[in-house]
Amino acid sequence: MEVFIEPIGKLINEFSKLPGVGKKTAQRYAYKIVNMPEQEAREFAQAILAAKQKVRFCKVCGNYSEEDVCEICKQRDPSVICVVKEPKDVIALEKLHEFKGVYHVLHGVLDPINGVTANDIRIHELQMRVQAGGVKEVIMATNPDVEGEATAMYLANILKPLGIKVTRLSRGIPIGSELEYTDEVTLSRALIERKEI
Amino acid sequence: MEVFIEPIGKLINEFSKLPGVGKKTAQRYAYKIVNMPEQEAREFAQAILAAKQKVRFCKVCGNYSEEDVCEICKQRDPSVICVVKEPKDVIALEKLHEFKGVYHVLHGVLDPINGVTANDIRIHELQMRVQAGGVKEVIMATNPDVEGEATAMYLANILKPLGIKVTRLSRGIPIGSELEYTDEVTLSRALIERKEI
Repeated sequence: MEVFIEPIGKLINEFSKLPGVGKKTAQRYAYKIVNMPEQEAREFAQAILAAKQKVRFCKVCGNYSEEDVCEICKQRDPSVICVVKEPKDVIALEKLHEFKGVYHVLHGVLDPINGVTANDIRIHELQMRVQAGGVKEVIMATNPDVEGEATAMYLANILKPLGIKVTRLSRGIPIGSELEYTDEVTLSRALIERKEI
Repeated sequence: MEVFIEPIGKLINEFSKLPGVGKKTAQRYAYKIVNMPEQEAREFAQAILAAKQKVRFCKVCGNYSEEDVCEICKQRDPSVICVVKEPKDVIALEKLHEFKGVYHVLHGVLDPINGVTANDIRIHELQMRVQAGGVKEVIMATNPDVEGEATAMYLANILKPLGIKVTRLSRGIPIGSELEYTDEVTLSRALIERKEI
């Protein structure tokens, strides 16, 4: 790396820490910074610091928040809780502008092979929320993979005895796709979960 | 973008300014920052500021430098000057660890259609360097495209009357490639510039 002068080499190194960024891409990013007006580079650096300093986790739902309790928990219908694996799943759902309830971010899913058990994710916090009362429905929105399904089943077994309606996002053929190209697992699931029209 | 809390939205916005980075990628980068230890994020921000503040252009060759005159200009053989379009071309050549001379970064190539003329790139500075004496050879290492070739020819016409040897990187079939898949322009150039063995 000695072909780069030290400040550029260092910046390339930092950019290489971002997901999916190799040396070549990091170099392009670094040159972009070097060629930026100073004010713009300062704003960039400031945004990184601010994101670290201002962002914490909502005490209620576990999503990113600027305050102790996030805007969603403060303003929305607390009787419906949507359970997701990660904060980015909240973003995916919020983009729909359809869900009016609140969230519960687990920060992971059960994955015993990799040592993630019930105590490692925010399951206890979910139980507490439900036991505090006022919750009518919990929607499982973990990913439709082995760990996501297992986590959803695990939570359903805990929550159902509390008299709560537990639902799951539907699985099936993606809208706009073709039967011919749908993988067998999805297609067979779509058949099993077929609905009357 | 209101689905993101403000500090994260702002950071996504900053990352989107990097070349080839769309909203999705910027979001991944921003989450990476948010999940970094605070110290690491601070170093990242610091590297951006340092790259802007410490990096300037070498007064002699025009390459990036931490000082008025860069390490290459200070230490290497000034009798051979390699002319390139951009600082990143210097990196590409330095990685070979073969060239012992110095560089001249034009910061562009002649491109009349887009309004780039001889006064817009560092041609005058190259003339001054050569006229100051001690230069035996100038190697044209602009890209083998229309603008790069035209710029090389233009410079050769200026420099040759000064009694300087002017050379050009060889063009031809890339090592390890196959004739069958070599584009016609390259292949015909390789034929024209064939060498005796």
